[in-house]
Amino acid sequence: MDKKIIQLICPDQKGIISKLTSILYKTNHNILSIQQHIDKEKEKFYIRVSVDLKSEINFPEKELFDLNRNLNGEMYLFDSNEKINVAILGTKESEPIYDLLIKNKSSELKCNFPIIISNHINLSAVAKQFNVDFYKTENDKQLLEILEKNNIDLVVLARYMQIIPDYIVKLYKNNIINIHHGFLPAFKGSKPYHQAYNKGVKLVGATAHYVTSELDEGPIICQDTVQINHKHSINNIIQLGREIEKNVLYKAVKSHLDYKVIVHDNKTIIFD
Amino acid sequence: MDKKIIQLICPDQKGIISKLTSILYKTNHNILSIQQHIDKEKEKFYIRVSVDLKSEINFPEKELFDLNRNLNGEMYLFDSNEKINVAILGTKESEPIYDLLIKNKSSELKCNFPIIISNHINLSAVAKQFNVDFYKTENDKQLLEILEKNNIDLVVLARYMQIIPDYIVKLYKNNIINIHHGFLPAFKGSKPYHQAYNKGVKLVGATAHYVTSELDEGPIICQDTVQINHKHSINNIIQLGREIEKNVLYKAVKSHLDYKVIVHDNKTIIFD
Amino acid sequence: MDKKIIQLICPDQKGIISKLTSILYKTNHNILSIQQHIDKEKEKFYIRVSVDLKSEINFPEKELFDLNRNLNGEMYLFDSNEKINVAILGTKESEPIYDLLIKNKSSELKCNFPIIISNHINLSAVAKQFNVDFYKTENDKQLLEILEKNNIDLVVLARYMQIIPDYIVKLYKNNIINIHHGFLPAFKGSKPYHQAYNKGVKLVGATAHYVTSELDEGPIICQDTVQINHKHSINNIIQLGREIEKNVLYKAVKSHLDYKVIVHDNKTIIFD
Amino acid sequence: MDKKIIQLICPDQKGIISKLTSILYKTNHNILSIQQHIDKEKEKFYIRVSVDLKSEINFPEKELFDLNRNLNGEMYLFDSNEKINVAILGTKESEPIYDLLIKNKSSELKCNFPIIISNHINLSAVAKQFNVDFYKTENDKQLLEILEKNNIDLVVLARYMQIIPDYIVKLYKNNIINIHHGFLPAFKGSKPYHQAYNKGVKLVGATAHYVTSELDEGPIICQDTVQINHKHSINNIIQLGREIEKNVLYKAVKSHLDYKVIVHDNKTIIFD
Repeated sequence: MDKKIIQLICPDQKGIISKLTSILYKTNHNILSIQQHIDKEKEKFYIRVSVDLKSEINFPEKELFDLNRNLNGEMYLFDSNEKINVAILGTKESEPIYDLLIKNKSSELKCNFPIIISNHINLSAVAKQFNVDFYKTENDKQLLEILEKNNIDLVVLARYMQIIPDYIVKLYKNNIINIHHGFLPAFKGSKPYHQAYNKGVKLVGATAHYVTSELDEGPIICQDTVQINHKHSINNIIQLGREIEKNVLYKAVKSHLDYKVIVHDNKTIIFD
Repeated sequence: MDKKIIQLICPDQKGIISKLTSILYKTNHNILSIQQHIDKEKEKFYIRVSVDLKSEINFPEKELFDLNRNLNGEMYLFDSNEKINVAILGTKESEPIYDLLIKNKSSELKCNFPIIISNHINLSAVAKQFNVDFYKTENDKQLLEILEKNNIDLVVLARYMQIIPDYIVKLYKNNIINIHHGFLPAFKGSKPYHQAYNKGVKLVGATAHYVTSELDEGPIICQDTVQINHKHSINNIIQLGREIEKNVLYKAVKSHLDYKVIVHDNKTIIFD
Repeated sequence: MDKKIIQLICPDQKGIISKLTSILYKTNHNILSIQQHIDKEKEKFYIRVSVDLKSEINFPEKELFDLNRNLNGEMYLFDSNEKINVAILGTKESEPIYDLLIKNKSSELKCNFPIIISNHINLSAVAKQFNVDFYKTENDKQLLEILEKNNIDLVVLARYMQIIPDYIVKLYKNNIINIHHGFLPAFKGSKPYHQAYNKGVKLVGATAHYVTSELDEGPIICQDTVQINHKHSINNIIQLGREIEKNVLYKAVKSHLDYKVIVHDNKTIIFD
Repeated sequence: MDKKIIQLICPDQKGIISKLTSILYKTNHNILSIQQHIDKEKEKFYIRVSVDLKSEINFPEKELFDLNRNLNGEMYLFDSNEKINVAILGTKESEPIYDLLIKNKSSELKCNFPIIISNHINLSAVAKQFNVDFYKTENDKQLLEILEKNNIDLVVLARYMQIIPDYIVKLYKNNIINIHHGFLPAFKGSKPYHQAYNKGVKLVGATAHYVTSELDEGPIICQDTVQINHKHSINNIIQLGREIEKNVLYKAVKSHLDYKVIVHDNKTIIFD
């Protein structure tokens, strides 16, 4: 089904929903779902509306943007039918990459995965299995060139053990998703499972977040944990964590692709 | 904060949200939250709107009920400040009852618990600890008298091992919540943990549901499960299950008290 | 590390552990782990001992089997280094099969997956991607021939929508693992997600079990559930369930390959 | 059933299980359960054996301690029938305290809870409901006097917002359990839920640990987490966290009372 997704962020005030929905009603559009959130502290209003485009008479873009201006808001319109281009960056770990590609194949993730980029050659085999172009590079400039040449909209760091330079982070603001194999903010930086093992914690976790200039500090999209105990060696923990990592990454990418994420300040609203 | 809760069920059609919210906007009311659901198969629309009553000029009841008539719907209005009267019925198990009373004391559950009714004397001690009136009866007619005398709105069966007669079920339609200590529809009837143990399942669960004429078949509000293994004796399973039972019952009662449950056919919509 | 795994089942009696471990100690063997269980009702004793074979002087097989005879038990010896041959049978669903193959590739599952057998041609692409032989057949006799020709030890039904005939079930007793996409014993038979949806349950689950002559009634190895709600369509439930299915199947296969499963009557002991 | 629990920690070496179990077999004792763990890095061996005392001929204490000496180990013997004395310390929160008292009443927690100590008067009502002596004090010396006068073996800090002075911590080494309402090592110190809210994490957790001289750094016994999202206010998070806190504290206390915890270095082994 072809759908239009409206995301709107504005100062909280009376009448927003009424005004927004009456524009849609007057132009004969059917609302499929509506989800809103009010941040009382910040006095901010957030809404996501999904609209049926079956009856595509004329989507009232102008009226909506006029309303947005009156509300002093930020508005984004997305078309559910347009598949965006997603680049996967990895190092050696293949499981989260396999998971994304398999879910794309079975249409659970609706996007294009045209390229895998890595600083190692290992992942070329995975790329080949799924007919995805593979690029090996450790060079920032080359990385950016590849992303631009392939019209990449979203970058997914699937256990990519390199730092993305700041100028690329800024170009792809809120469009780079990283999976960190630790339950942030605990265990930042490298070898979080080793940190967890040494600390004797009874849970390990993973965190999918947007990448910002500050390492492992970007807005969190999804997190999960799994119970461990004294019987688990570091290797067992890595295996258990791998499951969590890929589930969390998948959910984060799915929320992003469904336009269910709104980033505000350094936090996220994830509509379900 | 004083809130008005609107629940509306009607055939799916264009403009419902626009019409409803414009009534609220025109009468200067602020929407705190809006949650809707469309059942595409049945072509039914469900909505729950929570409205700030700070500015209680005049809540537009008439306009809303007029709209409801035009939409061919069913509408319910609730006032978040009015505490309803809840009767707890139990037999011997005290944990789920303690949980409800403690959460009421700490204001997590906003209602009155004026009475505990039981077919055994055991629970009188619990009632006494929390200054709740206790009634011992096994007689249907007496049960109904007690409920009516105490103006009971909601009946909670907290491991009450008796059948509620059909005429009482009908009087309290969608207002009797039962906790069944099994993962329905598996393990209906008596001794579900024994059934689960003998079957060798690796999970046991609990189910909170509204009571209907058919035993353990009413609309499900909340369910959860917990892992078990060969090390667990029947007694261990009963203990583990007890935790699930009380959590599930608490969540179901809370959803009911927050007017977040809509029952349709034999299923529930639980807004979150 | 090369390990010997001892599984012993016998009537409960004094001195079993002492006798068993003294045989190992006298022959200079190091115990890596020991796990036992007593079923008090049935007065049965179950033990799994894992022994380091570094110092392979002479594993005391004869002494152990003599002890087993004295204890009136059943004993099994396994070698952790010998990889068994596992056949995957599927129909159209590819995700649980991908998961097994990927985990085999990364050495999380230590076995050989020489063949995929299906009644449909769809899965041949998956087989090709992972260099596994593919057989298409709907014929029982041919199925058995393929299994025997490839020296198959374990058969995994990864959403295989066909019934395995009884004579094959008996040949591979406790060596056929099926994943059922329902929380058994609820929702036996076909279309369990549709059954769950229509019933309005708040959880769906999956069950991995050994196949016996009775449909969906064999000893359960692993089960798990996931929360659903009114927002989930049948398709959403199928997607959510798919995750649970493959995790549960993977865990069951892993327990089997690690010789951590003991089947007794129609129940399992799963050492962890 | 009367049971003897043996805990033994010693350098890893061949024959430990054989020697230990043969002492029990020769004195005609029946082993109910045996659980061991090997820490390969530290080359340490840990074992917990539970022995049936039905046939109390003469428990071979001397032989066991002789063995312990030969193994260069640390050994502890516990009697499952002796109830230890547990003091509960709290401040204002009553839910985790209620939970311990209720579970004691229903015999899920087998110990004595003779006293509640608090720096506030609030909890005296809880103490009264369950016939427990209540002490109000903010004075260290008085605190220690109360503990000693009541022969307290284990101190449970159930959301006690005070620091226990170092000399008391040392006197009760590995016998003071604290519940921290954060997922340690993230969110140490005060107001962890506020820290979590501000950080925008998608999970909050709780940690039960033994108290050491370093704040929130003692060996972890049990942890758990619960999903949160943007809809949860600080108050909602506190309510959700409260459930996790009390479950985690209960499990930690239960493991301790069942002699299933071994502390080594700054980590725990929790047998199940």
